[in-house]
Amino acid sequence: MQGLTIRPLRAADQAEWRRLWTGYLDYYESKVTEEVYATTFARLLSGAAGEFRGLIAEAEGRPVGLTHYLFHRHAWRVENVCYLQDLYTDPDCRGRGVARALIEAVYEAADAEGCPQVYWLTQEFNYRGRMLYDQVGVKTPFIRYDRRRG
Amino acid sequence: MQGLTIRPLRAADQAEWRRLWTGYLDYYESKVTEEVYATTFARLLSGAAGEFRGLIAEAEGRPVGLTHYLFHRHAWRVENVCYLQDLYTDPDCRGRGVARALIEAVYEAADAEGCPQVYWLTQEFNYRGRMLYDQVGVKTPFIRYDRRRG
Amino acid sequence: MQGLTIRPLRAADQAEWRRLWTGYLDYYESKVTEEVYATTFARLLSGAAGEFRGLIAEAEGRPVGLTHYLFHRHAWRVENVCYLQDLYTDPDCRGRGVARALIEAVYEAADAEGCPQVYWLTQEFNYRGRMLYDQVGVKTPFIRYDRRRG
Amino acid sequence: MQGLTIRPLRAADQAEWRRLWTGYLDYYESKVTEEVYATTFARLLSGAAGEFRGLIAEAEGRPVGLTHYLFHRHAWRVENVCYLQDLYTDPDCRGRGVARALIEAVYEAADAEGCPQVYWLTQEFNYRGRMLYDQVGVKTPFIRYDRRRG
Repeated sequence: MQGLTIRPLRAADQAEWRRLWTGYLDYYESKVTEEVYATTFARLLSGAAGEFRGLIAEAEGRPVGLTHYLFHRHAWRVENVCYLQDLYTDPDCRGRGVARALIEAVYEAADAEGCPQVYWLTQEFNYRGRMLYDQVGVKTPFIRYDRRRG
Repeated sequence: MQGLTIRPLRAADQAEWRRLWTGYLDYYESKVTEEVYATTFARLLSGAAGEFRGLIAEAEGRPVGLTHYLFHRHAWRVENVCYLQDLYTDPDCRGRGVARALIEAVYEAADAEGCPQVYWLTQEFNYRGRMLYDQVGVKTPFIRYDRRRG
Repeated sequence: MQGLTIRPLRAADQAEWRRLWTGYLDYYESKVTEEVYATTFARLLSGAAGEFRGLIAEAEGRPVGLTHYLFHRHAWRVENVCYLQDLYTDPDCRGRGVARALIEAVYEAADAEGCPQVYWLTQEFNYRGRMLYDQVGVKTPFIRYDRRRG
Repeated sequence: MQGLTIRPLRAADQAEWRRLWTGYLDYYESKVTEEVYATTFARLLSGAAGEFRGLIAEAEGRPVGLTHYLFHRHAWRVENVCYLQDLYTDPDCRGRGVARALIEAVYEAADAEGCPQVYWLTQEFNYRGRMLYDQVGVKTPFIRYDRRRG
């Protein structure tokens, strides 16, 4: 995509970040409280160890995508691993390489951190996502279980 | 299992911890370096934020199982989530509730931490594990992708 | 798709049928012998019990898609079930409802036969196919095993 | 399993066949009508082309397991393929090789028929079954979709 830039999230992005992230949460038919919007945004900007970091994809000066990633320990290795949790592209910018550019920017950030192992989770039936993920990633046989409640 | 106790890992466990964890890594046909054994053990005992914690299952005074778990951020919530990474029972103690007791002890630790959401990843074909996981957990549609290398 | 017609395969279709079916086999990186082309085509036209039947999708008088389906016994019911095996649309006609029209025509044929249960198998990673199948069908938890050879 | 014999289903088996097959249907939380019991049993004994055939596993002279299999056309080959649909072992005879012996007898029947390709479908979460199937078979990436009703 011509004129596509990936850059760190910054304080001035709050309104656009909120719009994009809400689009992402909508995909999962999820909502978060005002407290979560505020807390997550502050943490993304904190730069502290153990906090998510954010990247914004900008096309022609307009935010059109985002990703959130985190470094955490892995018992099997000395260096951390990088967990890419959220990834979103504006519906009207799909199919133009935004998500791929965001993932590749996370790869670069992970390399710069000395933690080249990057992973993410996706729903088995996220067909559009998986068309891309099969190119930039490798499907593993790992599936996620959650604690059973109640 | 009568006489089964779950307790935090401690410094005196090093030899037994190493034996158990090696059994776990063998299951995945994996090996780790001496540096990883030493680093991971030290981190497990550190009690620091962002580090894995360890639990040992003891039957008749003998370590027969272990688990490693970690609290990390989740962008969608204020509190952390708990990632249960490693879980192992000595082959000669299987089928007696050791793994279930370890998972339930992680649930209690997560509750005590105010982070009741616990999750783990397992290979789709880990049939014996999944017989238990379907009881204490809920399968999600999430699958893991890893960065493609080379 | 305007001007889309679904009709039974006929003897005059041999060249176009061969072209379309070869496209389908290519998708699976498969080849069949001349004997299979000849035998399958003859069986498709035979109208005999236990043989596959074929449907052709025609757009503006030109064959652009095909499907092969079969009725076979099911031990759990008196009536037969309908197995939809092959389904193909010319690449330059995709996204215009050809595959959906073919599947729906199989449903009608199954209803006419008094065997309304229709099923098919698809690769877990056939993302484009599954986008359609999730609309006209329901994913089951059934997976296929093949005899181990050698 | 000592004293284990696999032999074709016969008319005198009706009561035991019904008991075993009901156990199998119970596993799937399914019931069939009296008409289906009668029709399927008659078809299994008919020996006609296109009908299921049945095998009984006998231990010490007592039926302890069954399987139903069918030959049907495959568009990609001249010879038929063999679909193994139902497979059941009495709960008190599990773990003694009954299911394996039944599957292997189907393989022999398929070879004798000149249709060596055998396949079956199983639920992704049939862990006990899959422990055996991974030995005698190969998991494919194919999943089953059913027609959506209503």
